[in-house]
Amino acid sequence: MVDTSGIKLDAAFTQIQQDIDGVFDELLPVPNDTRRRLVEAMRHATMGGGKRVRPLLLVATAEMLGVARDPALRAACAVEAIHVYSLIHDDLPCMDDDDLRRGKLTVHKAFDEATAVLAGDSLHALAFEILTDERSFTDPFTRAELARTLASASGMNGMAGGQVMDMAADSATYDLPTITRLQQLKTGALLAASVEMGAILGKLQPEGRAPLRSYARDVGLAFQIADDLLDVEGDEETVGKAVGKDSEQGKQTFVTLMGVEGARNQSRALMDQAAGHLAQYGSDAALLIALAKFIVERDR
Amino acid sequence: MVDTSGIKLDAAFTQIQQDIDGVFDELLPVPNDTRRRLVEAMRHATMGGGKRVRPLLLVATAEMLGVARDPALRAACAVEAIHVYSLIHDDLPCMDDDDLRRGKLTVHKAFDEATAVLAGDSLHALAFEILTDERSFTDPFTRAELARTLASASGMNGMAGGQVMDMAADSATYDLPTITRLQQLKTGALLAASVEMGAILGKLQPEGRAPLRSYARDVGLAFQIADDLLDVEGDEETVGKAVGKDSEQGKQTFVTLMGVEGARNQSRALMDQAAGHLAQYGSDAALLIALAKFIVERDR
Repeated sequence: MVDTSGIKLDAAFTQIQQDIDGVFDELLPVPNDTRRRLVEAMRHATMGGGKRVRPLLLVATAEMLGVARDPALRAACAVEAIHVYSLIHDDLPCMDDDDLRRGKLTVHKAFDEATAVLAGDSLHALAFEILTDERSFTDPFTRAELARTLASASGMNGMAGGQVMDMAADSATYDLPTITRLQQLKTGALLAASVEMGAILGKLQPEGRAPLRSYARDVGLAFQIADDLLDVEGDEETVGKAVGKDSEQGKQTFVTLMGVEGARNQSRALMDQAAGHLAQYGSDAALLIALAKFIVERDR
Repeated sequence: MVDTSGIKLDAAFTQIQQDIDGVFDELLPVPNDTRRRLVEAMRHATMGGGKRVRPLLLVATAEMLGVARDPALRAACAVEAIHVYSLIHDDLPCMDDDDLRRGKLTVHKAFDEATAVLAGDSLHALAFEILTDERSFTDPFTRAELARTLASASGMNGMAGGQVMDMAADSATYDLPTITRLQQLKTGALLAASVEMGAILGKLQPEGRAPLRSYARDVGLAFQIADDLLDVEGDEETVGKAVGKDSEQGKQTFVTLMGVEGARNQSRALMDQAAGHLAQYGSDAALLIALAKFIVERDR
């Protein structure tokens, strides 16, 4: 196993958090008309919070492949914009009805529901505005490929489809293969897209992306198992959102199906497996492997 | 003025309605899992209704420039997917709270609010899935340009931004230039994008698109003035949605600012002006000009 002791993951997170905040600040100037409230809501949701796991996955993959940081950060902001729009809509009263997100009020609480719907929609569009901007990526094939990857990861065959399956989980009784499929769509697709987009920026051909895809699939599943564990064992203040909701709602999760210890062992096995897929990259993969470890062991 | 008497606009509308329904039917197979409800909601919203003005604008522009119908229909479905997602979200209880759309129940009434939010989000993503699919458009520059045009027309500097300004219009007192700007964003941006995307498919360079852009700007404004007139004078059953809502809400519209006759004259002047911009295309522009006339004179 690659030695990750030299990786300063805290510093990498701090840096990506600053960088992503910086790009959103630049992308979201507050206009001098009645759209002010919309853009303020978009800034509230995108800036000054969040672990930025997806941006770090994308930037770390790109960095491993020798891509300059600036275009990688742009692509990372597009992924984060999609993630944040989904959180805003997910938190709405008609969905999960949450008041707290990333330690702050949710958008519909800090603003209002209509603004939350439209701020989510505007962030959704912003993601594709970023990816198709020739100032971000000069090569049209790269722009089209990045946009294609993110669109298919976020729609009905990705994140949004997974959210629908998750909503239906309250009434349906799902077994482990179904829960796995659900989570691959709901969370896994966007995590995988982050890695894939780093590989696209690194000009890897689809067949050359296979090891990174396998890494991303395992990390995605480990991420969700860790999330289910946090819902059972996490501290609300540290996690930054409500915990214990799954069991309150009687939902099937990896933890209800495998038990706490089983789930923890499974997520660690996935982490080892994920690291194994990156063997060909040697010590260049140290940051991605450290990130996989963090995802499994995190308390937030 | 170009003779449009040979144009069978009714037949063109019937054909585009059938074609767009056909492409959505192909793009939205009902899955055999708990995403079924989501996809059924997407089908409810996209198929079997709507005038398809935006698709016809796009396809007519493309046809005038010698583009094959199949790729034009794909791009047209992407625009329509964005339009329909915006209607679904606009109809939500926290927004306009409408029960009726295109003569059918709105999505949150026929299904539920959460499904409506996610069906809108999924259609939003679908638009970019279509545009970045290399099976639709082989040239990567075309894919990236189409996606860029649609993303910027639908986000905070386009449709969504216009919707926010429209919501604020209930409390703010807008003058004519502000209402014009609002409508250019809310409705005009997507109508203009439809024409622009036809021009992109026709391989017109940005400088060569100027006459078509001018046509689209005038048509967009005329469209909204006609919409405001319908809200005052239209028949709910023919229009297919609630009428009289603007005045109930005490909103400023083109009609309140210009009067019924003033608004009607203005929309006719815009139609003549729109037709004038297409002089260089001679009789090839007959369908686009007939469409501009329809937009001004429509009763639905």
